[in-house]
Amino acid sequence: MSLTIALLSPGAMGSAVAARLTAHGATVLTSLEGRSEASCARARAAGMDDAPDKRLAEADIILSILPPAAASEPVDALLDHLGEGSLYIDCNALSPETKQALEARVTATGAAFVDGVIIGSPPSDQQNPVFYFSGAHAQRALPLGDFGLDVRTIDGPVGAAAALKMCFAGINKGVIGLGTAILLAAQRHGAGDALRTELDERLPHLLGHFERGVPGMYPKAYRWIAEMREIADFLGDEEAGAMIYEGFARLYGYIAHDGEGAGEDQAMLDAFFAGPQSPAKKHGAD
Amino acid sequence: MSLTIALLSPGAMGSAVAARLTAHGATVLTSLEGRSEASCARARAAGMDDAPDKRLAEADIILSILPPAAASEPVDALLDHLGEGSLYIDCNALSPETKQALEARVTATGAAFVDGVIIGSPPSDQQNPVFYFSGAHAQRALPLGDFGLDVRTIDGPVGAAAALKMCFAGINKGVIGLGTAILLAAQRHGAGDALRTELDERLPHLLGHFERGVPGMYPKAYRWIAEMREIADFLGDEEAGAMIYEGFARLYGYIAHDGEGAGEDQAMLDAFFAGPQSPAKKHGAD
Repeated sequence: MSLTIALLSPGAMGSAVAARLTAHGATVLTSLEGRSEASCARARAAGMDDAPDKRLAEADIILSILPPAAASEPVDALLDHLGEGSLYIDCNALSPETKQALEARVTATGAAFVDGVIIGSPPSDQQNPVFYFSGAHAQRALPLGDFGLDVRTIDGPVGAAAALKMCFAGINKGVIGLGTAILLAAQRHGAGDALRTELDERLPHLLGHFERGVPGMYPKAYRWIAEMREIADFLGDEEAGAMIYEGFARLYGYIAHDGEGAGEDQAMLDAFFAGPQSPAKKHGAD
Repeated sequence: MSLTIALLSPGAMGSAVAARLTAHGATVLTSLEGRSEASCARARAAGMDDAPDKRLAEADIILSILPPAAASEPVDALLDHLGEGSLYIDCNALSPETKQALEARVTATGAAFVDGVIIGSPPSDQQNPVFYFSGAHAQRALPLGDFGLDVRTIDGPVGAAAALKMCFAGINKGVIGLGTAILLAAQRHGAGDALRTELDERLPHLLGHFERGVPGMYPKAYRWIAEMREIADFLGDEEAGAMIYEGFARLYGYIAHDGEGAGEDQAMLDAFFAGPQSPAKKHGAD
């Protein structure tokens, strides 16, 4: 059994996925033309072979896993070489509408398109992210599961996998945003210690989510502003929750701004997690 | 050791608290003047004694625990009789600013004021809510702990206990709102089953919170609209999260409206929790 995969492009996630695939016997091609020496070294360490776009287009599966802020040039260059028999899988965190627009461009060449998303951190000895695929050709992505990836299909159109990714991020980062807003308000009103006690007793799962997620958010807050606005667009209108996510975008903008300045709010949040300065005093019945 | 408590008024929470106090040997007075026969029966079953306002004002502790939509008449009538030595504890879920305004009215009579809140369900064989008290006179509420209540003080001014209650509700009901918005979006995009699988594997604590909280919210959604707006007011400005809670108010308004009509969205949420209609198919590495 052999499988040739073209991978765009060898960023952190792309290289880790390629390393997993080559370790399981797959051939992984990528274009190193014009890439930095560091990128080339990373690609070779992951077992990838350099190949021109024409050869990439002939691979069994084309996987697009671009770094978050990447331009779309690698995709544009490849489109000219696609044709019937090509299988193009976009694994980037885009909106359902953007995926559908990309599908139209890819299928215009005669190639098949699959909507893919990756949930979790890059593959490593400790963990393996899950790949979800949707669209009429989703089953054609399954051979990746024979080469070390955790792959699952969703019985839905192009856009369903994209929606899953947005929803998962919306829950995880929304809960972190709620914690950020409310814990700051509690601290400002002198109720932080009592709130921590109550959360610990009644909603310990949420206190844990805040402890893990809020401090880790500070350096990412700036990036999350646009991500929250994308989720607001995805939800569509106010009654469906769009205003909630516009609110998170502004909150994260505020936190990012705070971090560039004195960091007073980040310090206030850290103080919440550091524990009792003046703990609630408990009396009476237990 | 004896303690006489005046309780305004014998609603569901007030009566349950009174029953707990009288079972532990406290004397609990309330005014039954003009109350319905059902209220009078409930008050007597809880061991409360009927008393005129003048006698209520002479109790060791005056506890205001009004039903959510209650008018403030019981309080207004009592204010005329308060004086130095009276201890007035407001245990209602009001904003810090409203508590401070009430404090001003009470202390103008010479009486002492304590900010109190109750977190949890009414006392029963199974559970006991926690009473938090803040303000300069908070320590004077502690004798309630000798009569079966779980009482704690917060080392903060009048308003700190009120803030705690708002923050706790903001987290609990905010997380339910996030679930409502996102689970509906996932269902509409055909990604509901895959999202449930991912939440179950990666964020099971949040899936559990949604399962417990979302279906129970439907009949309360109408009431939560105003509560979300109060939390938005409490947070103050957009960057502090006020817009997030205005968004929740609109979302809950939408859910309440849906429940008055065909209930299509509630049915869609129920379908999410009911489990796989077309579950994600899993392949490859585990």
